[in-house]
Amino acid sequence: MQDEVFMRLALDMAKGAAGQTSPNPMVGSVVVKNGEIVGMGAHLKAGEPHAEVHALRMSGEKADGATIYVTLEPCSHHGRTPPCADAIVAAGISRAVIASLDPNPLVAGRGVGKLKAAGIEVTVGVLEEEARKLNEVFFHYISTGRPFVTVKTAMTLDGKIAAKTGHSQWITGEAARREVHQLRHRHDAILVGINTVIADDPELTARLYQTERQPVRVILDSTLRMPLNARVVTDGKAPTWVFTTRRAPLDKIEAIRRLGVQVLVLDAQVIEIGMLLNTLGQAGITSLLVEGGTGVNGAFFDARAIQKLISYLACKLIGGAAAPVPFGGGGIAYMHEAVWLDDIEVRQVDRHDLRISGYPRWVMEQ
Amino acid sequence: MQDEVFMRLALDMAKGAAGQTSPNPMVGSVVVKNGEIVGMGAHLKAGEPHAEVHALRMSGEKADGATIYVTLEPCSHHGRTPPCADAIVAAGISRAVIASLDPNPLVAGRGVGKLKAAGIEVTVGVLEEEARKLNEVFFHYISTGRPFVTVKTAMTLDGKIAAKTGHSQWITGEAARREVHQLRHRHDAILVGINTVIADDPELTARLYQTERQPVRVILDSTLRMPLNARVVTDGKAPTWVFTTRRAPLDKIEAIRRLGVQVLVLDAQVIEIGMLLNTLGQAGITSLLVEGGTGVNGAFFDARAIQKLISYLACKLIGGAAAPVPFGGGGIAYMHEAVWLDDIEVRQVDRHDLRISGYPRWVMEQ
Repeated sequence: MQDEVFMRLALDMAKGAAGQTSPNPMVGSVVVKNGEIVGMGAHLKAGEPHAEVHALRMSGEKADGATIYVTLEPCSHHGRTPPCADAIVAAGISRAVIASLDPNPLVAGRGVGKLKAAGIEVTVGVLEEEARKLNEVFFHYISTGRPFVTVKTAMTLDGKIAAKTGHSQWITGEAARREVHQLRHRHDAILVGINTVIADDPELTARLYQTERQPVRVILDSTLRMPLNARVVTDGKAPTWVFTTRRAPLDKIEAIRRLGVQVLVLDAQVIEIGMLLNTLGQAGITSLLVEGGTGVNGAFFDARAIQKLISYLACKLIGGAAAPVPFGGGGIAYMHEAVWLDDIEVRQVDRHDLRISGYPRWVMEQ
Repeated sequence: MQDEVFMRLALDMAKGAAGQTSPNPMVGSVVVKNGEIVGMGAHLKAGEPHAEVHALRMSGEKADGATIYVTLEPCSHHGRTPPCADAIVAAGISRAVIASLDPNPLVAGRGVGKLKAAGIEVTVGVLEEEARKLNEVFFHYISTGRPFVTVKTAMTLDGKIAAKTGHSQWITGEAARREVHQLRHRHDAILVGINTVIADDPELTARLYQTERQPVRVILDSTLRMPLNARVVTDGKAPTWVFTTRRAPLDKIEAIRRLGVQVLVLDAQVIEIGMLLNTLGQAGITSLLVEGGTGVNGAFFDARAIQKLISYLACKLIGGAAAPVPFGGGGIAYMHEAVWLDDIEVRQVDRHDLRISGYPRWVMEQ
C-alpha cells in the first residue's frame, strides 16, 4: 500500500515534465526513510541528470539505509550521464522499488541486477501499468525504432471534417482547439498532407501553449506542390521537413532547400508510411501527431500504423455528400475486419464537443 | 416542493405508457388529500379513459376537497371520452396543479378556464419543461400537423455507416441494437430508403422488444424498384407503406398493392420531404424514426426536417474513401451555417459504443 502511495507521487512528478524530456522517457523518483520523504526528483530534459540523481542529491546523507522509488528501471550503462544504478549503490540505499523494467530488451534487468549484486532488496512491478502508459511513446519507440503515432481528428456528429467547400474553420470550439495545441507541444513532430497546407496554410505550431520547444512540422508532398510562400516554409517558427518522392522536380527541391526547409526525397513513387516512419525514427522523432485530412489519415490506417486515436466530436451537423471524411484510403471490406479501440476514454470538453480516445488493436501489427 | 414531488410521480406514471398512447399524449395524474395520495392514474391507450378519470375513480368520495395533479391541461371538449375538466369539477376537487397547458393553441387554457369558473384554485407550470419534453412528439405533431422526426444513425469513430462494400452488420454491438428495437417500438413509423431494402432486406420491426404494436414501415422508393420478395412486402409482420412518384411504373404499383402493401404516389418527380411528412401526419403518424442511409438522411437534413438526432458511435475504425457516410445530400457550404444540437446527452452503451443525442437547432424551421 505504502509502496503504491510513494510510487504514485513519483509518477505524478514524472508526468509533470511531459513534453520536455524527449527522446528520453519521463521518470520520477522518491527517497523514503523511516516512512518520511527525504528526497524527490524527476528527469526534466535530455542531457540533464536522471530522476534518481536529483532525488539522491536532495536526500544527501539520509539516503543511507533508505528506500528509493523510481518509475523506470535505473540505467546500468554510461550514456550522457553515469549509470544511476551505481549512484544508488554508492548512496547506501537499502531497498529499491521499481515500477517498470527498461523497455529495451537488450538492457532490461541489468539495472536491477547491479542493485541486487550490491545487496539491495529490489521490488519490481509496483504501478507497472501506469508507468508503461505514462511512457507509451518511449516504450514504442525503443522497441520499434519508429515514432508512436497519434492520429487526431475533429469531426461533426455526421462524420465530416469540413463542409463540401472544404471550409473547416472551425469544427470544434475554442476549448478543444486549445487542447490540440497542448497535444502538439507533447509531440516531437506534427504531420499533415500538402493538401492541408494548400487549403489552410496552417502555422502548425503549439502557439496557444506557451513553450520554447516547437515540434517539427512534417509535410507529406509526393510531387512537391509546396507553395514557396506557405507559412511552414517562410515563418521560421519551427523546423519544417518536407517528405517527397522521385516524382519531385529537382529545381523545386533546390528552391525549397534554399529557403532553409529540409526536403527528404524517398526513393519511391509514393510516400510509403513504413519508410517514412523509419526515417523519422532514425532522425530521433519519438512521437508523431498526425493531423491529416482524408488521404493522409487513410494512408496511416491502411499501413496499420496508428498507435492512438484522439477524435474530437463536435455535436453539430453539416450534411453534404461531398463533405470530406476523416479517413479515406482503401479501408476494410467487411465489418468483422473492423479495427477495435482499446482503453477508450470519453470526456466532454465543452457544451458541444466530446473527446474520445483509444488505442487501435491491430490484429497483425506492422 | 410538495407540488413537485407529486407532479414528478404523475410524470413517471405517464412515462410508463411510452409507446402505447399514440396518437394521444402520455399523461399522468395523482389525487392528494391531506398530504396523502388517494388516487393515481395514467392514460394508457387512445380511446380509453384519460389519466384524470382513472385517478378520480380510484379516489372515489375522497376526491371531494382534494388536490389533483395532472401533467397536461385537462381537456374541455368531447372527444372519444367526455371532458376531463367536467369530471374534475363534478368530483369536488378544490385545487388543480397542472404541468403544461394544451399544445393546441386553439384550445390551450380552456380546460383551466372551466376549472377556475367552477371555483377551483389552479396552479400551472409545475415541472413544465419535463412535461413538454415527455410529450415532445405530441406537442410537435399538434402544432405542425407533421410527425416528430428522429434520425437514428450508427457510425464508426471514422464516420462510416458501412464498409466500402456496403457491408454493415454490425456497426454497433448487441446492447445498442436492442436499444434501437425499443426505440422503434416508441415510434408510429420507421422510414428507410429503397437502397437499404435492396442491400439488407431488413425486417424493420421491433422484434427484439416484446410488443403487439408494430410501427408502420415506410419505404422511400421514387422509381419503385421494390423487390416483390422483400421481407417488408411479404412477411406481414407490420404494415408497409411505399412512397413513390410519378416515375413509378403503373404495373409495378398494381403488383405491389396486390400483395397487400400500400403504395402512395406523390404527384412529383422526386420524393419531397415536406410533402411526405404532411401525408404521414394526415395519416395519423405522430412520430417517425428515420433509419436511412446517406441519401435519405441527407434529404431530411437538406429539408431541415429533423427534430432529434440519435447517433450511436462505435469506437472502431474501418477506413476507406468509398465507405458510406451517415449524411449525404447537399449540406451546408461554410462552417458558420453548421446546425448545432441542443440538449446533448452522451451515454456509454457498452464498452465500445456511445449514444449521443440532441435536438438540431434549425435557425429557420420549415
